[in-house]
Amino acid sequence: MELKDLAPRLLLKERANGDIDPNVLTNILRGGKVANDRRKHLIQTIASHPVLSDRDMMFRNHTERYEFGLKKAFYYVKLLQEGNYSDEEDQKILYKALGEPLGVDVHRAMFIPTLENQGDESQRAKWLPLAKQYKILGAYAQTELGHGSNVQGIETVATFDKATQEFILDSPTLTSRKWWPGGLGKTANHAIVHARLTLDGKDVGVQAFLVQIRSMHDHMPLPGIKVGDIGPKVGFNAVDNGYCAFHKIRVPRENMLMRYAKVLSDGTFVKPQSDKLVYLTMVRIRAYLIETLATLMGAAATICTRFSAARIQGRTPDLKGEFQVLDYQNQQHKLFPLLAISYAAQFAGSSLKELHDSALDAIKKGEPRFGTKLAELHAVSSGLKAWIAEHVSDGIETCRRLCGGHGFTQSSNLSHIFAEIVGANTYEGTFDVLVQQHARYLLKTLALLPANENSTKFLSQVTRYSDSELRCDAETREDFDNLDLLLEAFQARAARIILMLASHMRAANNDGNACMVLMARASTSHAELILLESFIHGVRNIPSGREQQAVAQLCSLFGAWLITKSLGDFRQHDYLSSDQADLVRKQVVHLLPVIRKNCVLLTDAWDFSDFELNSTIGRYDGDIYRALVKRAADEPLNKTQVPEGYTKYLKPLIQSDL
Amino acid sequence: MELKDLAPRLLLKERANGDIDPNVLTNILRGGKVANDRRKHLIQTIASHPVLSDRDMMFRNHTERYEFGLKKAFYYVKLLQEGNYSDEEDQKILYKALGEPLGVDVHRAMFIPTLENQGDESQRAKWLPLAKQYKILGAYAQTELGHGSNVQGIETVATFDKATQEFILDSPTLTSRKWWPGGLGKTANHAIVHARLTLDGKDVGVQAFLVQIRSMHDHMPLPGIKVGDIGPKVGFNAVDNGYCAFHKIRVPRENMLMRYAKVLSDGTFVKPQSDKLVYLTMVRIRAYLIETLATLMGAAATICTRFSAARIQGRTPDLKGEFQVLDYQNQQHKLFPLLAISYAAQFAGSSLKELHDSALDAIKKGEPRFGTKLAELHAVSSGLKAWIAEHVSDGIETCRRLCGGHGFTQSSNLSHIFAEIVGANTYEGTFDVLVQQHARYLLKTLALLPANENSTKFLSQVTRYSDSELRCDAETREDFDNLDLLLEAFQARAARIILMLASHMRAANNDGNACMVLMARASTSHAELILLESFIHGVRNIPSGREQQAVAQLCSLFGAWLITKSLGDFRQHDYLSSDQADLVRKQVVHLLPVIRKNCVLLTDAWDFSDFELNSTIGRYDGDIYRALVKRAADEPLNKTQVPEGYTKYLKPLIQSDL
Repeated sequence: MELKDLAPRLLLKERANGDIDPNVLTNILRGGKVANDRRKHLIQTIASHPVLSDRDMMFRNHTERYEFGLKKAFYYVKLLQEGNYSDEEDQKILYKALGEPLGVDVHRAMFIPTLENQGDESQRAKWLPLAKQYKILGAYAQTELGHGSNVQGIETVATFDKATQEFILDSPTLTSRKWWPGGLGKTANHAIVHARLTLDGKDVGVQAFLVQIRSMHDHMPLPGIKVGDIGPKVGFNAVDNGYCAFHKIRVPRENMLMRYAKVLSDGTFVKPQSDKLVYLTMVRIRAYLIETLATLMGAAATICTRFSAARIQGRTPDLKGEFQVLDYQNQQHKLFPLLAISYAAQFAGSSLKELHDSALDAIKKGEPRFGTKLAELHAVSSGLKAWIAEHVSDGIETCRRLCGGHGFTQSSNLSHIFAEIVGANTYEGTFDVLVQQHARYLLKTLALLPANENSTKFLSQVTRYSDSELRCDAETREDFDNLDLLLEAFQARAARIILMLASHMRAANNDGNACMVLMARASTSHAELILLESFIHGVRNIPSGREQQAVAQLCSLFGAWLITKSLGDFRQHDYLSSDQADLVRKQVVHLLPVIRKNCVLLTDAWDFSDFELNSTIGRYDGDIYRALVKRAADEPLNKTQVPEGYTKYLKPLIQSDL
Repeated sequence: MELKDLAPRLLLKERANGDIDPNVLTNILRGGKVANDRRKHLIQTIASHPVLSDRDMMFRNHTERYEFGLKKAFYYVKLLQEGNYSDEEDQKILYKALGEPLGVDVHRAMFIPTLENQGDESQRAKWLPLAKQYKILGAYAQTELGHGSNVQGIETVATFDKATQEFILDSPTLTSRKWWPGGLGKTANHAIVHARLTLDGKDVGVQAFLVQIRSMHDHMPLPGIKVGDIGPKVGFNAVDNGYCAFHKIRVPRENMLMRYAKVLSDGTFVKPQSDKLVYLTMVRIRAYLIETLATLMGAAATICTRFSAARIQGRTPDLKGEFQVLDYQNQQHKLFPLLAISYAAQFAGSSLKELHDSALDAIKKGEPRFGTKLAELHAVSSGLKAWIAEHVSDGIETCRRLCGGHGFTQSSNLSHIFAEIVGANTYEGTFDVLVQQHARYLLKTLALLPANENSTKFLSQVTRYSDSELRCDAETREDFDNLDLLLEAFQARAARIILMLASHMRAANNDGNACMVLMARASTSHAELILLESFIHGVRNIPSGREQQAVAQLCSLFGAWLITKSLGDFRQHDYLSSDQADLVRKQVVHLLPVIRKNCVLLTDAWDFSDFELNSTIGRYDGDIYRALVKRAADEPLNKTQVPEGYTKYLKPLIQSDL
């Protein structure tokens, strides 16, 4: 049989060899059948739209992607308006189905929510309807050329002119120009600008101002404003991430966002009451980000698993046939833990969203203990975001490499998925910032035992866990199937590292930077514990049966694989013995063929359409070779037989008389 | 002081705080002063060329990069011809200085060398001069849509027509089309095509044929040939990686490359005598690749170190100032091991080149024991290539993330460096293929002890190393400064894993796939041992003094850091105790500020020009903010104040009456 016909059959064979119903798991991964059906309907709406279904971004440079993105943005807004899609979740699904963020990205995701959260009643009444109709297009201008994560360091200044009741905004230095904000370069006519406010010579801290930056009439930058695009980036190339410098421009007093801090007409500064809701907003953003990361890991694992099943390469030992790439132990060993990560992250993201929602409820009801709950959520979401962003982006790149040369082709879409998400390691807090926040929370909890919050309750047993005589109970490889035994190992490990961190911090006179490597270990060990806990919780919520069993196997692999990755931690004071360490490694290898049985169905369970995956090699039907040939035909260079530069640059060489 | 002026001063401060002379190390890293001066002269030649100095690739899509690449190729050939650059090393330096591979990449690096190595005398006489004058432009067409690393699986067929003394080449299936060869799509008019040859109905294996694919007159594909570009990729976007299908086309008998295998005019097949030289060619290619990887790791580490020194971010605990990013322990912990990898890989690459050259000498002199030497070189180069390709590409991406948002900008050049080298994980053998070759060699050596080759001599002590009572001697943190103590730890670890692999292979009836995860561990453990050995050897070749000491500290970090990465291995049977493991971790953290003292100078030692690095944030003078602003001004979107799509797509939204 020809290879091109064999490939689809091999994928069918994998599905036939499995024994689970992926629909059962789809409902769990995708928030129930109703939500999933709605999601698929919305995606189909984009897939059948003459403009919005465009997937030719790989042929475009930054300028072209931006310009085509404007077209997409226009039709997206038209679609929302004409289809009456007012539900926020619907809008989000439709937008994500566009396959790349656009110039209106930050307008949607940051500008409108910031007006909603930080504008007072009259500001909301004035600006929100305009913003929601895309009549004013906004950017969120916080980051500057010289300062990113340290918001307190920003250099843009605002002063209040009582006489005219205006703020004067100014960029006093080169590095004070706003730098990076999405949509700021070419799209936005307004921006929420963060500047350090001075009132009667007194610094009252960084405040947010709504600033018109371009004319509503002809879109030209307003006088005193220099604005432009910062150039091509790793990802987001349809977005005009921009720069902006202000030369003593004036905005009315009413343009400072005044829900919390206020400046009265006589120049009096009214301090904000509480910034706790800001933390809750950060938790919500991270919970959504974690869900996005989980889904993209699922997408990459789906593409890679299907390709690995459909692709044959390398002779079998009897030389009579060829292995499916999926047959290789190393392929399984690299791929299946990533599939496990997609499930673990999805479960953790859902939990976080639930916790966020219940915290929001508690605030609204004015319940006590809200502060400690919020601190926990903020810390845990920090640690999880740091871990998941790193492991998912690395995992997507691993999937790409596991697909060999065909993974290297843009039409596999794996490098596009990578490029669009790898920035998550940087935005919303870099690894180093987040793990410190997380670790400091863990130290605080340790200092105030007993711990009351779910995620740190194990610390109450710290004396037991820190006993260097404590040993893991496992005697056989099979003992590591026991999820509770795994969990205890992760608790012991986390407790020991946190305790060690506390002692190092004391020795270093609380100098965090001197203990930062250890802080990262503490955060990682706790994040992995939370992930394993969420995974186990997720498994136990699946109706019992083969599907539950298959996911439980994935969970076992996740735990055992993580142990092998950080074996030194688990072997500390011989909590795991040398022989037990060998058993864990054995367990990982043992689980690979077990999981292989259902691996294609476990990725099918994510229920991605071919349109969403947009991958020649990740097609549901496995018809990868025809897809590769067909997609190559779209390359603009193939429009002519002879390249444009031939006459000028090749012919003189070929036909030279040298 | 303004940040933009502070940044250069901070970098100066780092240089002033160091106490080594980077020139001493430059001579070692760059093969001596004469070679380095020549290198710099050649790079300056490119940097001052009106066309070849182009560095605007980030603004171009694949089609544009290819077309501009033709222009570069033309001027590159002109430069070689007019400047009489006939030395191979000179040509290589000039070509690399172009900053991206072009459509003539494979012509240079594979087509010409293959003619040289596999063409017989008359073939060389006929084709080489034409190829070297770029009158015939060649591709190397081995890989097919359906088959990559398994060359034996290729489907293109050749049959011999005795009557006409011609070979008939045919692509019988969709998947038999050639797929991936660089330059094949649009540039090449000839290709070396690998096809399975049948003589009188008998399969005589895969042979190589020189096939004209395009007209020398007008560059149109010849009849029976379908050829085109496969579309955008992660990297190499100035290259026209192509596809090609043959419909029963004919080439004369003289076009089979006949230095080894031959087909006589009566259709008799003459078998090749030895393919050992082919292995040696692979070793040579890998040695050069390892050197390239080392250099790129050096480039990324240079950019990241300079940025980390010049950038401040995050308040110091006293809130009075801001940390340099380089102050952060985590930044040092992630960055310095990568700097160490660049040195280790460079030393290992040089050793490999020397070993290759002496093996070539040995062959020429007909010395005995050549076979075993060759086997060692092939195995070691496999394992090293697998390890270094993975760690360097991951390391470059880590450097990019360590530069935060500015690393995400294309003008940092880090993602370009990554994109152009990450394919090294795939070409010249994927990780999984290579580690198996390496591991099988180690098993063979173990079975035939005593070991005679340098790299495996330690296996002769396998009994000692496998003694589960054997313990590491270290008692204090300082003991891990002892490079021989480190080396012994790596030997013990490698010996134990190889021994375990042997026992698993016996238990698995020699089924390699059942032991592949362990094979990867064996290969990794041996590759790390070789790297550490090469590093130590490199250190000992540096004239004694501060420079030697600084590199020795980097070497200590390399060893200790690798131990912490695979602590489970080193703790097996408690070769390292739990307390010793803590000492190693302590040693890593201890070395960070020690290395920081000279870290900028250690990267300066690589002696990259700003033109080579092509990085706004990696400039030698630390003037990063002005560079970022200047480079953003080049973005084509900034040519107009209002984007092209405004009238059609933004204005209707902004000025709608909805």
